[in-house]
Amino acid sequence: MNSTSFAKSYFDKNQHFILEEWYNLLKLPTLGADTDHLGDCARATAILKKFLLSMNFAVEIITPEDEIPVPILIAERAAADAGTTVLFYGHYDVQPATPVDAWNTPPFEPTLIDGRVYARGAQDNKGQMVAFLQGIKALIDSGKPIPNIKIVMEGQEESGSFGLIKLAPDLSQRLQADVLLVCDTSCAPDGRPAIISSLRGIQNLTVTLKGPDYDLHSGTHGGVAPNPAQGIARLLASLHNENGSIAVQGFNDAIAPPSREEIEMARCSQQSDESYKAEIGCLPQGGERELPSAVRAGFYPTIEVNGLFSGHYGTGPKTVIPATASAKLSMRLVPYQKTADTLKSLQSHLTKHCPPGFTISFSEIIEGAPGFRLPVESPIFKLAEDVLKEMDERGPVFKWEGASIPVVATLQNISGAAPLLVGFGREEDKIHCPNESFSIDQFIQVMEWSTLILEALAF
Amino acid sequence: MNSTSFAKSYFDKNQHFILEEWYNLLKLPTLGADTDHLGDCARATAILKKFLLSMNFAVEIITPEDEIPVPILIAERAAADAGTTVLFYGHYDVQPATPVDAWNTPPFEPTLIDGRVYARGAQDNKGQMVAFLQGIKALIDSGKPIPNIKIVMEGQEESGSFGLIKLAPDLSQRLQADVLLVCDTSCAPDGRPAIISSLRGIQNLTVTLKGPDYDLHSGTHGGVAPNPAQGIARLLASLHNENGSIAVQGFNDAIAPPSREEIEMARCSQQSDESYKAEIGCLPQGGERELPSAVRAGFYPTIEVNGLFSGHYGTGPKTVIPATASAKLSMRLVPYQKTADTLKSLQSHLTKHCPPGFTISFSEIIEGAPGFRLPVESPIFKLAEDVLKEMDERGPVFKWEGASIPVVATLQNISGAAPLLVGFGREEDKIHCPNESFSIDQFIQVMEWSTLILEALAF
Repeated sequence: MNSTSFAKSYFDKNQHFILEEWYNLLKLPTLGADTDHLGDCARATAILKKFLLSMNFAVEIITPEDEIPVPILIAERAAADAGTTVLFYGHYDVQPATPVDAWNTPPFEPTLIDGRVYARGAQDNKGQMVAFLQGIKALIDSGKPIPNIKIVMEGQEESGSFGLIKLAPDLSQRLQADVLLVCDTSCAPDGRPAIISSLRGIQNLTVTLKGPDYDLHSGTHGGVAPNPAQGIARLLASLHNENGSIAVQGFNDAIAPPSREEIEMARCSQQSDESYKAEIGCLPQGGERELPSAVRAGFYPTIEVNGLFSGHYGTGPKTVIPATASAKLSMRLVPYQKTADTLKSLQSHLTKHCPPGFTISFSEIIEGAPGFRLPVESPIFKLAEDVLKEMDERGPVFKWEGASIPVVATLQNISGAAPLLVGFGREEDKIHCPNESFSIDQFIQVMEWSTLILEALAF
Repeated sequence: MNSTSFAKSYFDKNQHFILEEWYNLLKLPTLGADTDHLGDCARATAILKKFLLSMNFAVEIITPEDEIPVPILIAERAAADAGTTVLFYGHYDVQPATPVDAWNTPPFEPTLIDGRVYARGAQDNKGQMVAFLQGIKALIDSGKPIPNIKIVMEGQEESGSFGLIKLAPDLSQRLQADVLLVCDTSCAPDGRPAIISSLRGIQNLTVTLKGPDYDLHSGTHGGVAPNPAQGIARLLASLHNENGSIAVQGFNDAIAPPSREEIEMARCSQQSDESYKAEIGCLPQGGERELPSAVRAGFYPTIEVNGLFSGHYGTGPKTVIPATASAKLSMRLVPYQKTADTLKSLQSHLTKHCPPGFTISFSEIIEGAPGFRLPVESPIFKLAEDVLKEMDERGPVFKWEGASIPVVATLQNISGAAPLLVGFGREEDKIHCPNESFSIDQFIQVMEWSTLILEALAF
């Protein structure tokens, strides 16, 4: 019997218990950024703990020192003869369900319709996480070989993983592992499995220019007082060169350009300009325009303005010279860029290029987390490719992901493990949106992946 | 008996009636931008009409075609033998009294305390306007010589004079005059009378860049999608050169540089950089920095950003690429710049310099009104200097005003009259602010000015 039918037949046999476990988690509005839901987070960790104890894991629940102390679950199960140690990361928190009116079924009452379970978190990440854990249970129940497994599950992924990132250095020894498994991503648009070969890091900074002490009459003072809205425009314009590349001295020093193979593979999965425009509403003309768009998103850092505000924003004119202007920046970082260094380069640049007449200040500084990238020829990717070929004969694609899961690089660093991010999300799952769902087929797919990759790692 | 004592003795003799007339106007919350107060505006024009009829003016009240049809009063009184025709402009509308809590006395209950009348509009412009009209009445009552007088009073000055500006071309023949008298400005800081030798014009434009159809995830799309917040920064930065001068081709073509004499006189009244910083909170480093600040404000145009907004402006980070970014611009114009031309130059520049990836659009376009400037050696200024020397032996200063009274240039154009703007406001009057006031002494000063200048023009 092949593994596909093993996972499927295990699911079919235990369907009632598996769904009950999953639904019990989905019923809890585990909003990790909202203190009102700390109780729900505690209940979720209790359910997960009970489940892991039933598989003979040693389990500890840690309350991190954070403004919102959302519990973190750490578990470990040593296999009899295994040399390999796997670290599995998942999160039980979810995005808010707003706007609730837009849901066809109540967001915290999981509802099975036509083979899909509808609920907030049905996919992200309760669905994929529970399915992966059920894969572990299937292996254990069957007596198949299994590696040492360490698990960390948290409730702040959707709001920055601050608690876990802060705690991570203290967990370094406990979480030493060979492979870091994360099941929180998606397949390729054509349904082929995807290996996430990189994630970008992220950091944040808000910059403010102050001119006059208060908004001035732009007639009396126009051409005399420095205008912070104009000053910040000039300052932000200095961050990029004419061709869209980053102009901040030192910012890009550490980056390793992609290999020819990586460029070719990224280009293969690149959306055409026309298709991008049809989907998004504009051509992909951000970033360094000479480079292919998939290469820009996957292998190069960004400095993006996420918010910009100064002066009057109501209807109609108001002729003022604003007292201040602010820009919220976020930086996506690629491997070898050090968060402290990029932040320093950026602040130096902004200070140096600040036009005359203004006082510059920085706030909301989040040094953040670095990115990770593994070469496509990494042994762990080769192993994953073989496993994924068993599941889909076309084999996997590689995805150099522009987004960030900040905690991944942190866990990579403290555990020494090679990150292996494979997930089975689809566009139609509508994560973060109303009517999020996950199909039973996808759930079984994750179970399959879990059993196959763990079996392959059990040596 | 000299004229000072003439105005003062007339005031003293008729104090009761003069104050009653003024107070009756001050009691009306004539908010010209608020349809709820159209009734108060109508009541104000009725009071003014009755007063003018008592002086044998022919009076007409016109309801302009405007969204808020605030009545305009047109009056005319031909003198027996006078060759000179004076056009007097005033406005009976006021700024809102908010925040009302900050007033020590109710804003629409005029209250006399220590020789000052406290009320919204006490100075701007009901106080100066009524005082000027009482000067006319004093002259008429005394049988002194007087020029032909035309009067236009409106209720939308504080909100742009749209009704009057629209109506003005039709009034051209009726309002032909030699001198346009406006009493809506202030003395020099040291109390010397000031002749406003120029005002800047004003126009407005909002520019919007659209990138994607909706806010995008700045990880997935960062470096791929064009970011409108960054695009608008680059676009706005292109409006000025490094030294602060305007970089828009054609925008400055028509401007006439100030004469050496004007520059010298403007420099004389210029505030020191240190004093400016102490008052405003920053050095006067806006505009073309090589030029003296008083010259920049008085003789050069500006393109100012009054509002700038894009993306996330709440607390903390939100990692989006905003769908749009907008900037509200206002331009101050100097004589010979044509509003249609500057607007066209600016729109061409913005369109031409729009970075790739964005759709640019314009809204809230107000072509506005041009500026005016008379040379200091103009005959009307010589006459005014002589009159003002009678009132203050130091004589007047000239002020090249950076602000705008949009209707002045319009009235200058349609009437053919030379503008003569002299007013007796002081910083302590706190116009537009809570606890606005006007002293009885200033009121009498305006009456003096009115009687003296009209007598001087009666030939």
